Amino acid sequence: MVTKTEIVVRYAETDQMSIAHHSNYAVWYEQARTEFIRHFGLSYGEMEKLGVWLPLLELNCRYGMPARYEDRLVVETRIGLLTPSRIRFDYTIRKEGEEKPINQGFTQHAFTTPALRPMNLKKKFPELYQLLSDAAECND
Amino acid sequence: MVTKTEIVVRYAETDQMSIAHHSNYAVWYEQARTEFIRHFGLSYGEMEKLGVWLPLLELNCRYGMPARYEDRLVVETRIGLLTPSRIRFDYTIRKEGEEKPINQGFTQHAFTTPALRPMNLKKKFPELYQLLSDAAECND
Amino acid sequence: MVTKTEIVVRYAETDQMSIAHHSNYAVWYEQARTEFIRHFGLSYGEMEKLGVWLPLLELNCRYGMPARYEDRLVVETRIGLLTPSRIRFDYTIRKEGEEKPINQGFTQHAFTTPALRPMNLKKKFPELYQLLSDAAECND
Amino acid sequence: MVTKTEIVVRYAETDQMSIAHHSNYAVWYEQARTEFIRHFGLSYGEMEKLGVWLPLLELNCRYGMPARYEDRLVVETRIGLLTPSRIRFDYTIRKEGEEKPINQGFTQHAFTTPALRPMNLKKKFPELYQLLSDAAECND
Repeated sequence: MVTKTEIVVRYAETDQMSIAHHSNYAVWYEQARTEFIRHFGLSYGEMEKLGVWLPLLELNCRYGMPARYEDRLVVETRIGLLTPSRIRFDYTIRKEGEEKPINQGFTQHAFTTPALRPMNLKKKFPELYQLLSDAAECND
Repeated sequence: MVTKTEIVVRYAETDQMSIAHHSNYAVWYEQARTEFIRHFGLSYGEMEKLGVWLPLLELNCRYGMPARYEDRLVVETRIGLLTPSRIRFDYTIRKEGEEKPINQGFTQHAFTTPALRPMNLKKKFPELYQLLSDAAECND
Repeated sequence: MVTKTEIVVRYAETDQMSIAHHSNYAVWYEQARTEFIRHFGLSYGEMEKLGVWLPLLELNCRYGMPARYEDRLVVETRIGLLTPSRIRFDYTIRKEGEEKPINQGFTQHAFTTPALRPMNLKKKFPELYQLLSDAAECND
Repeated sequence: MVTKTEIVVRYAETDQMSIAHHSNYAVWYEQARTEFIRHFGLSYGEMEKLGVWLPLLELNCRYGMPARYEDRLVVETRIGLLTPSRIRFDYTIRKEGEEKPINQGFTQHAFTTPALRPMNLKKKFPELYQLLSDAAECND
């Protein structure tokens, strides 16, 4: 499963190099991840209310071409890796209508309780785990 | 009571006009407010744990001269108005060593419970109210 | 002329009160303003390239109900005031499908050169001024 | 050469997990990088005016323990790698007074012209390159 999320670069996201500041990509990844999860008929917010939190373990972001104010970007999102205790989302960003990615990256998350304790999602929420597993490209 | 908080403009806070983006001033006001409250020997975080929340009712921000990357700014903070149900903080921002303000504004906050219900701080936490009242320039 | 811009609250925009942090409204206003201007067939970015900058003189933001993660908001934007040297945009934010605004505010901008010198837009760019004037609710 | 930069977590940097949102670490890295460069007696801003830009090629950020509102953090910064065309800064973040890092990461940057064209810093600005080289832990 792959989802596509459209982002339009906001003025506030530019910096004095007249490009989108690099810290915004993590926010765009997050918005794309939110939409990816919404495709299952649930939401990130509902997962949190269920007691499943997804704090970040690692962020990786590789920048090719800059994005500029008012650029229309498309973030492609997929699950790159899934285990009972963690999940990795992979992202590719392109300018609308272009082939070549301008940015690629991933975010790796732990499944935790609201007290940030590790959780075995497969045991605790087998149905949710199954949903994610079906959507994943690679799992173990 | 007046406190002074130093802010150094971050690169991420600039925009493509090569000035600090206007939305950052609200964040700087907040940092200044945090330090103002810390002067009482308590912290904003502890107030929240006590059950006293201060969501915003109004933000006002008037911009004179721009601030730029690496500028050292000083935010002067005072309580402009205090009532049992709300508090207004007033802010004046200057470049370090300069007389003329580059920005002035205020934030008005309600006292609420964590469920965002209005709270009469004077009744509920009379000692805290007294502390704020002593620090205020004007109250009723 | 009134435009409507949809905003979906991002996770990164929440704070530890579990509501959208108040500083984001200025960013949403800006996105709404961008779309308002795009309705004229030009863009904010093109205006900047023409040499017309719109730095903020004043921001005012009044908060009613909080916005939360994944809330769908609609920002209604209009020109509240236009003079040869400045422009004020007025904003009203509602949750999608609701009547009652959760937030109202305005931003007042100067017309300046890229060196941030005041500009008489009516003299310098009479056609652009006319466009804005036609869209304004009140001008002098 | 290693520098230490103090960061106090801002309220606006928290999210609804009541921890500092992961996108802020890139901003803190940047502030630490700014101070690292300031130790040479020049500034990041002056480098940009000279015509040396440092856009990001890659950001990596590994999160251990969360940071919370008002936490005092120390960012340790060093040059991890230097070549004539690029530079990598390495960061370790600890809570003040603690041994164990809560976060580690790096940012890799290209040296470019203001038009974002690659630059050979060693040829173009040999003295600046030498300064960086002396401060680097590993270069080639």
